[in-house]
Formats: sequence, C-alpha cells, structure tokens
Amino acid sequence: MNTGNSSRPQLKIRRVNLDTGRENVAVISRRSKALRPEVFRGFSRVELRRNSRVLLATLLITDDDALVGPEDIGLSDPAFRRFAEPVGSLVTVTPSMPPNSLDAVRGKIQGRTLAASEIAEIVNDLTHFRYSDMEIAAFLISFASFTTSDELLALAQAMAQAGTQLKWNKPIVVDKHCIGGIPGNRTSMVVVPIVAAHGLTIPKTSSRAITSPAGTADTMEVLARVDLGVEEMKEVVSACHGCLVWGGHVNLAPADDILISVERALSLDTREQMVASILSKKLAAGSTHLLIDLPVGPAAKLTNANEAMRLRKLFEFVGDHFGISIEVITTDGRQPIGSGIGPVLEAQDVMAVLSNDPSAPPDLREKSLRLAAHLLEYDPELRGGTGYARARHLLDSGAALKQMQKIIDAQGPSVCRTDLGTLTIDVPAPGDGVVSAIDCLRLNRLARTAGAPIDKGAGIRIFKKIGDRVEKGEPLYRIYSLDHSEHGLVAAAAKSNAGYLIDGQRRGETEL
Amino acid sequence: MNTGNSSRPQLKIRRVNLDTGRENVAVISRRSKALRPEVFRGFSRVELRRNSRVLLATLLITDDDALVGPEDIGLSDPAFRRFAEPVGSLVTVTPSMPPNSLDAVRGKIQGRTLAASEIAEIVNDLTHFRYSDMEIAAFLISFASFTTSDELLALAQAMAQAGTQLKWNKPIVVDKHCIGGIPGNRTSMVVVPIVAAHGLTIPKTSSRAITSPAGTADTMEVLARVDLGVEEMKEVVSACHGCLVWGGHVNLAPADDILISVERALSLDTREQMVASILSKKLAAGSTHLLIDLPVGPAAKLTNANEAMRLRKLFEFVGDHFGISIEVITTDGRQPIGSGIGPVLEAQDVMAVLSNDPSAPPDLREKSLRLAAHLLEYDPELRGGTGYARARHLLDSGAALKQMQKIIDAQGPSVCRTDLGTLTIDVPAPGDGVVSAIDCLRLNRLARTAGAPIDKGAGIRIFKKIGDRVEKGEPLYRIYSLDHSEHGLVAAAAKSNAGYLIDGQRRGETEL
Repeated sequence: MNTGNSSRPQLKIRRVNLDTGRENVAVISRRSKALRPEVFRGFSRVELRRNSRVLLATLLITDDDALVGPEDIGLSDPAFRRFAEPVGSLVTVTPSMPPNSLDAVRGKIQGRTLAASEIAEIVNDLTHFRYSDMEIAAFLISFASFTTSDELLALAQAMAQAGTQLKWNKPIVVDKHCIGGIPGNRTSMVVVPIVAAHGLTIPKTSSRAITSPAGTADTMEVLARVDLGVEEMKEVVSACHGCLVWGGHVNLAPADDILISVERALSLDTREQMVASILSKKLAAGSTHLLIDLPVGPAAKLTNANEAMRLRKLFEFVGDHFGISIEVITTDGRQPIGSGIGPVLEAQDVMAVLSNDPSAPPDLREKSLRLAAHLLEYDPELRGGTGYARARHLLDSGAALKQMQKIIDAQGPSVCRTDLGTLTIDVPAPGDGVVSAIDCLRLNRLARTAGAPIDKGAGIRIFKKIGDRVEKGEPLYRIYSLDHSEHGLVAAAAKSNAGYLIDGQRRGETEL
Repeated sequence: MNTGNSSRPQLKIRRVNLDTGRENVAVISRRSKALRPEVFRGFSRVELRRNSRVLLATLLITDDDALVGPEDIGLSDPAFRRFAEPVGSLVTVTPSMPPNSLDAVRGKIQGRTLAASEIAEIVNDLTHFRYSDMEIAAFLISFASFTTSDELLALAQAMAQAGTQLKWNKPIVVDKHCIGGIPGNRTSMVVVPIVAAHGLTIPKTSSRAITSPAGTADTMEVLARVDLGVEEMKEVVSACHGCLVWGGHVNLAPADDILISVERALSLDTREQMVASILSKKLAAGSTHLLIDLPVGPAAKLTNANEAMRLRKLFEFVGDHFGISIEVITTDGRQPIGSGIGPVLEAQDVMAVLSNDPSAPPDLREKSLRLAAHLLEYDPELRGGTGYARARHLLDSGAALKQMQKIIDAQGPSVCRTDLGTLTIDVPAPGDGVVSAIDCLRLNRLARTAGAPIDKGAGIRIFKKIGDRVEKGEPLYRIYSLDHSEHGLVAAAAKSNAGYLIDGQRRGETEL
C-alpha cells in the first residue's frame, strides 16, 4: 500500500452514505491494511492528506467489507463534500493531533484570559471544521463561565472576518434583529418592504429555524426563493433597496453557525455568546445602523427588564467598539405576535398586514410599524419624530406591499410546497373565563411537533390572546398537520398541555 | 406502521456494523416511514423504547436502503449491545429530551455549586450512557473551572457507588496506585506478589493503556489471563491474598471510565478529577489502606514538588473523609523505570526482578521494594520500621516469585501472542558524553508508534539511563516492532527526535 516516496500508509477514498451533520466522520475496516484501527479506537481523530488538502475527521470502525474494505477509507457525506477529492483517490491517513488552538481553549478552562490572536486562531480552526463536537463544546463552555470584554470583542471580530464580508458603498445600511423565542413574530417581512419603499438600504439575511417552528427564512421561502448567493443578493438589493434572504447561503460568519448548532444541542445560552453571534453577522453583512428587538416575557428568552438592560448594555458596548450605531428596544414578549405559527400561516399574516386586510393581526402591524419607525429615523433627510407617520403612510398607501412584490419578483418564485395542512385539531377552552397567559415555548413545541418548519403548511392559528374572554369548549387555536403520525403526536401533546392559562387556572392541569 | 394502542411511530431494529466507541449511535433513512429525519437533523438525539427498555442515541441519516431502509432503525455495535433487543423487534422512536441532570451541568457552567444529589444524578445518567460526548465534555469542563470540596467528595462517592462494590471481610485491604506517565513503571507486578506472600490482602485491579504504550493490565496479560469477573477475582484473592486483574471487567466505578475517555480526547487533566477518579475506584474496590505514588520530573504529570504537595493534600482530604488510610509519596519521575517499555519487555523486567536475575533493572527492584515496604508497615503484626527488610526478604528468598506463579496459575494462562517484535532499530548516541535527560513523553509516543500495547511484543529496550557515559554511535535503546508500516513510522520518528539529551545537547537537534 505504501508509495515509494512515503512511509505513510495510504487508503482509497470511498463514500459512506451517512449524514453526520457538522462533524466530519471517516470509517475504516477493523482489518485495515494500512492503519491499525485499535490504535485509533473510540472516536479518535485522524488527518487525511492528499496533495495540499487536509481534513480532520472522527473515526468509526467497521467489520463490514461491503461498507468499507481493508484498503479503503469511507467518508461520510459532509466529510466527502468538504474534502472534495474523487472516490478512489489515495490519501495518507495518520492519527491527528488536535488543532493547536485547543491549547488556548484548555488555558481558558483553567482560567486564563485569551489574546485576540488566540481567539482568531480558534475561530479559523472552527470555520475549517477542524474541531470535533466535543472540542466545540469545550470552547463554548470555557467562554460561558467567564468572558472578558476584550475577549468578547475579539470573538465578534474574528467571527465576522472568517467568511463573506459584504460592502454596500452606502453611508447608511440599516438592519433589524430580534433575539427570538416569540412564535409568529415575523416583523422583518413587514419592516423590510416599508424601509426599502422609503429608499433606505436594508439587506436582510435571516436564519432558518433550528429549534423553533419557523425562522424568517423559512417563512419568506413560502413567498419567494431565499437561497441566493452573494452576487444575486447584491442584485436584488441594488434593484429593490432591500431583500429577505437566507443567511446560510451567503456564508456570513460561518463559525457562528457551527457554534450555534452545538450551543442548541447543549441548551447553552449566554449573553456574551449571543451578542458575539448577532453582531459578527451584522458586521459581516456591512450594517451601519442596527435595531435590536428584545422581547421580555415569562416564557421569553428574557424574563425581566433587568436582564434586558444588561443585554442592552452589552450590545451597545460591542456596537460602539465596531462603530455600528445600535439601538436596543424591549418589546412585549408575553405571547405570540400575529395569529399564525409556522411558515405558511405566518406568511398569510404578513401578506394580510401588507395588504391592509381588515382581518390582519393588529399586533403584528403595530409592532412592525414601531420597528420600521425606528429604522426610518436613521434617515437624515427625515424630520425627527416623523418616522412612525412615514412608516404608516408607506404601509397604508400600498407602497410597502408593492415593494414586497418587487422583492419577491427579484428573488424569484418559491419552489416549495405551500399548501396549508388539511389535518386539523381545534383545541378548546377548558372552561369559561379570560385568557391570562400563553406559554410561548409550549406553542413553539406544539407547532414543531405538528411538522413545522419542514412541512411549510403545518402549524397553529391562534384565535384567542391574553385578555380575551372565552367560553368553555370555544376553540383557543387550531393545529394544522400534513402527516398522520405527526397529527397523532400533536393531538396527544396538546391534550396533555395546551399552553393556555384561563382565569388563573392552567388548562393543562384540568381534565378535558 | 403504528400499532393499535399507540400513536407513536415504530421502527424495526437492524444492526449497523459500526463501532462508535462509548457513544450510542442510531441510523435512520432519509425516507423513514415513521420518523421525519429532517426534524432530528444534525446529531440530535432520539429515545428508543421497547417494553421497559430505554436507550438514548445520537442520530445519523442515510439515503442507502442497503444500510437502513425506511421501515428500520439501524443500531451501531455499542448501541445494539446495550439495548440488547433482537434484530427485527419493533421499537418506538421519539425525539429525546436531554437527561434532566444536564440542567445541573448548565447551572454549574453558570457558576452554581451542585448538591450531592445532583451530582449523583449526573453520575447515574453517565453510567447508563445517557450523555452524548458533547454533554460529557460539558460536565467535565464545568467541573474543571472550579470544584468545591463538597462537590469533589460527592463526585467520588457517586462514582464509587455506581457499579460493582467489592467487600472483603478483612480488617486490612491494601492497594497501591501510581498516577502514571512514567514508561516501564511496572512496580505493581513486583509489589503485589511481595505483599501477598506476606499475607496481606491486595486485590489489585489495573487499567489498560489509553494513551500510553502499556498499562499494568496489558503487561500482566503477557503472563496470565486478566479479564476476570468479580467472582473469579474473589476466588484468586481468596487463594493467593492478591491478584493482578483488569478493572474493566470488574466494572468498578464505570462512570469514571466514560469520563476518562472524554478527558483524554480533550487532553483535560485536573487534580480534582484525578483524585475523584482514583479514589472512587479504590472505594469501590473495598481498599482500607492505600499508597499513592506521585512521580515528579520535567516530563512527568507533576513537574515540581509544590504541585505534588497540593495533589497530596487533596488525596489526604478525600481519603480521610471516606475513612481510607492514605499515604502519598513522591518518587523520581525524571526517566523510565526499568529497561523495557511495552507489555512483553516490561513483563521480562518484572520476572527478572522477581527471579533475582543479576541483569534485572535495579531501579525497578528498588522502587518496588520501597513501595512494598510502605504497604507492609500497615500490618499491625509487623514491628515498626522493618517493612523494607521484610519486603527484601520476601523478594530475595524467592517467596515473591513463588507467589507470582501462584497468582498466574490462579488467574489462568495468557491467551495472547507474547513473542518479542523481530523488526528492530538501534538508536545511536549522536556524540560522546553523558546522558543528562530522557523525555518520558517522547519514549512513550515512540513505543506506541512501534505498535505497543496492541502488539504486545512491540516497544523499547533502554540501554542508557541518566548519568550513563556514552560514545558516539553506541546504542541508547532498541525499538521492537512486529509490523513493517509501524517499523517505518517509528524509525522516522526516532530519527527526528530520539528523546535523549547528551551532555546538554538534545540529540534530536543534531544531524545523524
């Protein structure tokens, strides 16, 4: 197996049809001709080299020649894609040392403060998929126990610089961002057309849902294509002043996406990581003026005004450092915004607001107008204090709807299935009274169990909000599914806990 | 697919021939009939249930029906073994919530001190393979940043109680433990027969090598069977007063083995974790008197007397709490002990010392006598201060050798290949001078590259130690391999850095 000029063992690349997510995984035979699998046993890592290409991968072992024979090395889907060498190529495989930057992570675990150069090296290794999941977890947790101001700045900067960096050649590039957690809160899709109709540049990139029933990108996808590349995105913004695209394809701050996926898996949520994550994306996106929406409520990410203030200060500190003009506002996070939860239902809400449909949810309209007003005030041409009136004019006159149509046309038609689920369940009030609380987390989970965001047409339509009077048996909301097994699951889940509190009594605690 | 009485989707168990180490891994089809794989995408975890059995597993996705079809769920080797349900059985598969105890880990990350009950719950979940690798890393790192005394005690106790707990019905059960890192340091195999020949009970369980070229269990395996179960071990100890078996089969403090494997993968090494790890094993093994050997040297785990003292205090604190009589001694860790590194070579050293062979390594003999002397002093019948003389008598008289033969016979004959490697390289001195330093880490790595401990007969025989005069070209040590590719690798590695410093000049820095 050895080539003449190398004493290193070589193996033939083969594909193994396994989707292993963000982690590179390689498979070798227990009877491998060139590698002694026992030496690497137990999720050790190996380094694959061919010409100048290098890939670090976690190793699994098999006895099945049909999967990977003794002369082969099998690459899982993501590893194969990232290594990008053809099947049958010979590669050198050696036990891999962990990336050097892991020394800094260990230092951090032991209480050392890291230099900006060390943080940049870590982010660079993360971006190139050199960290195993365990190593990513080690980094996140070392930063979760304490992060200095300088470390936070270095992290945000390093993440912003590792990936695409957009430039717009405009003095003002506005953006808005919500820290999430509130179902149905699709304000961006109303705000962007209003602001773009006014003529300010608002190149909005959004995420897809990771643990929620819909991200803005998932909902926008019901109306238009969202997986635009950098050049396509620039064309849309040039033609329409704004866009509503998925950030994943544009590759802004890719290290952040890797960190977020592990953070979610561990349910870690630290303020510093959140600020670094959001601001690195905005820095990379070339924003100059940024509005941050912090919903506060009992089941929101922030549960009181004090927490919101601490987070606001952190955003302001980092924003000031990088010269981004930041405004942070707190909003009502006690209940869902709008009536729909799930991509199709949320898209219906958005289009109803933009069309001035009388049945459009007033809370989504009001919140969007308020956010748009803040952004419009960034325009030096606009008389101070007139932002709200201007936003309302652009909405009421149909200019925002027209702008949305223009953006949709520029991005291209939606290619996904967008019909609403036909399997429905109406969840009834357990007794007479007034809705006193709605559990956002619970509704998110129910909508997800119903099939959202994978099934665009799955989700929840809300009939009753906080303060509404209900009679026993009257429907609180309707659940939509496309799939029978999910329909069964969500029916059982809603029955055990519907997430509504009526007159001080939690519905889930009563028998139906 | 759904059964009449359950709305939960069910899938058929199938084996997937993949060794995934300590992590449970399950594979489903992207076209799965009962599960929506996209919902679980990206290393999420699922819960498998059949009757009262539950298994948490990390999920991978495939498009290959030959691997796992739409109606199946594939279980990797360890997951299949642990779930222990036959191929073809129907199981319920649902997205899994992380174990509840992970809330405590998150609390710890945020700086909270954990209660003993929380730590016990974590250890219980670890023992039942409910933690993913990422989650194990999170736990370890949260404890690495700070561990209170109470947390340390709770951790040691919980680990000791989760697994086999041995009872001996003897007032004195002695044990020794070395924190490791020194090549060739096989004192246990000399100490146990001496102490057992005297009549004290010394039921020694040892580990296999994880990152070193040999653990005591690997070396003992050259002479006898070591994978004894609890009952077999008890019989050997009853017949011989002592044993030298592999701890893995006895299942003492299994959570510790899981933690260690992740710790090693991350190269984390904290004093608290080490003390909890060692003492939990000794508590579970029923030891009453314990001698801890702390080698100190520039390439040892402890590099100065101050570090050693801090570690000693921690051992004493925890030992006192649990009523184990602990003595901690520091020893010379500047260079290997004995002349052999690797299972067969080390076993030869041990048998030479026990046989009073004139060519036996004097350092291994002296260190073993010193350790045995300390242990013998625990015998109330023995006059104070006569431990060393007693140990030497037992060794010189052949009583220790006879006891070793008895232990070997009781444990049963070795079943592994025990011939010495026939591919050898002599590594020469680069110039005339005196050996001034030997890099233990380097020799460990070279012996491992040569094939140890997988190839029992691979390793290093040392000819020159610190203080020895050498002439240019004279062999410093000989490397043994059984396999051509490893022979080539280790030859190149020894050439680039031999790990010896002669007269103040590191050999690796000169040209050969």
